[in-house]
Amino acid sequence: MAVPYIDLDKTKTFQRLKALPRPHIADILTRERVHNAKAPMAAGLSFHFAAMPIEQAHLETFQDLAEEMQLIQAYQDLLNGEVMNTGENRKVLHHLTRGQLGDDVFADGVNKAEFYRKELHKVQNFARKVHAKSITGSTGKPFDTVVQIGIGGSDLGPRALCIALEGFAKSQGRKPAMRAEFISNIDPDDGAAVMEQINPETTLFILVTKSGSTQETLTNRELVLSCLEKYSSTSIDASRHMTAVTSETSPLAGSPDFLETFFIDDYIGGRFSSTSAVGALVLSLAYGAELFLDFLSGAHDADRLALTPEVKHNAALLDALIGMYLRNVLSYPASAVLPYSHALSRFTAHLQQLDMESSGKQVNRYGKPVSYATGPLIFGEPGTNSQHSFYQLLHQGTDIIPLQFIGFRTPQRNVDIESEGSTSQQKLAANLAAQIIAFAKGKDDVDKNKYFPGNRPSSLICGDQLTPRSLGALLSHFENKVMFQGLIWNINSFDQEGVQLGKELTKQLLSDSSEPEGTLLEFYRLLTDQ
Amino acid sequence: MAVPYIDLDKTKTFQRLKALPRPHIADILTRERVHNAKAPMAAGLSFHFAAMPIEQAHLETFQDLAEEMQLIQAYQDLLNGEVMNTGENRKVLHHLTRGQLGDDVFADGVNKAEFYRKELHKVQNFARKVHAKSITGSTGKPFDTVVQIGIGGSDLGPRALCIALEGFAKSQGRKPAMRAEFISNIDPDDGAAVMEQINPETTLFILVTKSGSTQETLTNRELVLSCLEKYSSTSIDASRHMTAVTSETSPLAGSPDFLETFFIDDYIGGRFSSTSAVGALVLSLAYGAELFLDFLSGAHDADRLALTPEVKHNAALLDALIGMYLRNVLSYPASAVLPYSHALSRFTAHLQQLDMESSGKQVNRYGKPVSYATGPLIFGEPGTNSQHSFYQLLHQGTDIIPLQFIGFRTPQRNVDIESEGSTSQQKLAANLAAQIIAFAKGKDDVDKNKYFPGNRPSSLICGDQLTPRSLGALLSHFENKVMFQGLIWNINSFDQEGVQLGKELTKQLLSDSSEPEGTLLEFYRLLTDQ
Repeated sequence: MAVPYIDLDKTKTFQRLKALPRPHIADILTRERVHNAKAPMAAGLSFHFAAMPIEQAHLETFQDLAEEMQLIQAYQDLLNGEVMNTGENRKVLHHLTRGQLGDDVFADGVNKAEFYRKELHKVQNFARKVHAKSITGSTGKPFDTVVQIGIGGSDLGPRALCIALEGFAKSQGRKPAMRAEFISNIDPDDGAAVMEQINPETTLFILVTKSGSTQETLTNRELVLSCLEKYSSTSIDASRHMTAVTSETSPLAGSPDFLETFFIDDYIGGRFSSTSAVGALVLSLAYGAELFLDFLSGAHDADRLALTPEVKHNAALLDALIGMYLRNVLSYPASAVLPYSHALSRFTAHLQQLDMESSGKQVNRYGKPVSYATGPLIFGEPGTNSQHSFYQLLHQGTDIIPLQFIGFRTPQRNVDIESEGSTSQQKLAANLAAQIIAFAKGKDDVDKNKYFPGNRPSSLICGDQLTPRSLGALLSHFENKVMFQGLIWNINSFDQEGVQLGKELTKQLLSDSSEPEGTLLEFYRLLTDQ
Repeated sequence: MAVPYIDLDKTKTFQRLKALPRPHIADILTRERVHNAKAPMAAGLSFHFAAMPIEQAHLETFQDLAEEMQLIQAYQDLLNGEVMNTGENRKVLHHLTRGQLGDDVFADGVNKAEFYRKELHKVQNFARKVHAKSITGSTGKPFDTVVQIGIGGSDLGPRALCIALEGFAKSQGRKPAMRAEFISNIDPDDGAAVMEQINPETTLFILVTKSGSTQETLTNRELVLSCLEKYSSTSIDASRHMTAVTSETSPLAGSPDFLETFFIDDYIGGRFSSTSAVGALVLSLAYGAELFLDFLSGAHDADRLALTPEVKHNAALLDALIGMYLRNVLSYPASAVLPYSHALSRFTAHLQQLDMESSGKQVNRYGKPVSYATGPLIFGEPGTNSQHSFYQLLHQGTDIIPLQFIGFRTPQRNVDIESEGSTSQQKLAANLAAQIIAFAKGKDDVDKNKYFPGNRPSSLICGDQLTPRSLGALLSHFENKVMFQGLIWNINSFDQEGVQLGKELTKQLLSDSSEPEGTLLEFYRLLTDQ
């Protein structure tokens, strides 16, 4: 059956959803619910919605909506290579970087699954040679540091994943193969700070820009080259320290300035590119090719699970539908992602791009304005740190902000200590459980300053440990959640026209050929004239 | 004249404010406005509101509101030692850590200005001795690393400031005196990761907990002690590597386990404590006692400027009033803080606590529920990185989110390069100017997917360079903005009762003596049972 692609408010089911009872969470939260209100995820994770205002009637209506909008069919069409990035007339193929779940997809004259596999093999062979010291720096020393130069999706995802897996890699009793650093910001203080900390002779750079024209990334390449010349006592051949990840049509492709070039293509958006060469190279260099394969397999398993037609057994789809309910029925404008895992300290920054850049849209896939709210504001910091920061407002502020918790039963490293009768990990778990209940149930008090209204909705993703596999499953969960929400809102989740205007105005200021508009020039002068 | 302390919606002026015209920003933004719509700040900074929907009539009404609510008098009363933390019956004295602007304040039997000065001198003498190597580790080696163990205000502010000043300290042609690291999270992976990177023999720890009973901090102290025993080949006397910042009534005061103990008191809340010993010790150790004094003087100058009665010459008060207007008249629930300075990459995380913990309140200072929105959600990442992350939603999402930009004319380090006819710093400035105009003016397009509605309000704080003095002024600006907003909303900005319930429920789970409630126990089991 063909996917109808209609606006959410034009569906019959959405009207029914709005009419459903809206229980206070404290009234429905029972021990049985904590047991039963959950959906399985890949890699041993599970999605819990006991503390969400979602009852059986909601689940049934969600199921009806998924069927009315043909959400699973739309996902299958995407996997089969249908043009889902409608504005830019492109297929959307990031799932194919971790395995095939649909028809063979051909584009640019090749089978795309083979293309991604070939690039992955290139990455892994390269990483193995670097680790085996058969590829070294130009002065003969082995590489011990990798610096990724990229911004947006070429930075946030790979960086978050590198941080997330460092403890795991170290817990295996071995040092990570290489130290990973990142340069992203056009602010020269960013690149300069990284360059202060590295030894040029033993550092390998990865320049990541799909188009080969990203202003920040090309500028930072120049900054790096200039520092290499300035700092280095021995003369370094920069082309033997610099690799590139770019598209085959980019001006960088085929350049002799790179030790090796790895390819991506237009069917993988920056924010969905962590499982392509954009993430593969830096992660394989830092932690080994095998670890990266485990990460991919976790993501692939989660992609497969997201094809499950039953909403209550499809965590990504269920999470997407609950998110829509919170946004479009209960009218909450934001959502906090709160990992109780310090290793995920930058994962929320990645989700911020993934979600807000995909779903921050005002027109539907046909370019017509939608008449309902789309993507919420996403923010967060790791617990328990966040408890001592902004939870005051979450508990007692005048707005309700729904919460998405993430927690694991085991730390990554083998350092845990018992004090006052419990381990640090048990204290972490106790804090997380306590917050879910505090937000859901609140607490009455005659002193209104000590009164907690409760009814603050939260979901929980939990698992045994943050491993490459569970991290892959977690990443895929959120990617697929965002994709499903885009389908529910009938928007194009895969373009980002909203970033163009700023680029054009910046160009006006920096090029000699155009006369910048008056107020623009005035602000620029304010920011440059001493 | 006595401060009336009435709810915002009970003032006469607020009703007039709601009735004012609400211009589209594009209609009022002229070159003249960019020149004129500004207020001076300390340390050469300035606050620009040209791209805010604020006209002369608004400024006049703001002035009337400030006078009706006696906001400057309330601030002066606070400086004079009036009990402003009403719920906890405490004075609010963080301003006194950087200089005196009111009457002598006596509490706990002492002149509080003298108390803070004495502790500052202790901190600075201690730092000088460490730098002079007259205080060394227990094996005789000089200290080269300082690790602060603390959470919330004992972590976010000091950490953000350490990151903010690293480039400045290095730009003076000298290495920072010591490397600074932080351990905050109860998650054992946080402490373990830091302990992997340090040499115990040359590391000095600072344990920061005002009450001496913060669960995370005391647990992390145990983790550190256990790692010192395990990792260290030479036997280390931990008491000669550990200092404390705590209150005189804390169980830690007078303990022989510390090389030295520095005192704070109940009149400085955690989120306002960066200028007390909580920030002084780590910053003085990392970058030198003199640099910290410069930082304090910038903050003190800004505190003085915040006493200015004319709203348009009082940036902190004006920023507070504009924020209220955006929240309570235009009904925007969030605000992004976007520093175009990579050195401020964690400054927003500190502001998130400062603002959301202070203003996330539902009752007024008399404990009565307020009938208007209080503190907004605060979030942000540094530009230009943020442009490649969530700006899509800011430009084209269905909600308007007001923006607070920060920018400087000069980088901290002496590394800047010219490419394609402009320096990195000029490109950074051009991007920032372009964003202000793009958000304000938008762009029409027949293709609705390329249409930018504009009318997205933004303010800009700019200055020559991020130095200790300008950073002090910046910190004080936001602290005083938050204070003024608390006065405008008639709330107590200085307590945090909303964090208590989670602590109580955590205790239920971890203590043997209480039987946790059923759903709480069930979530805890889910997070601990393998």
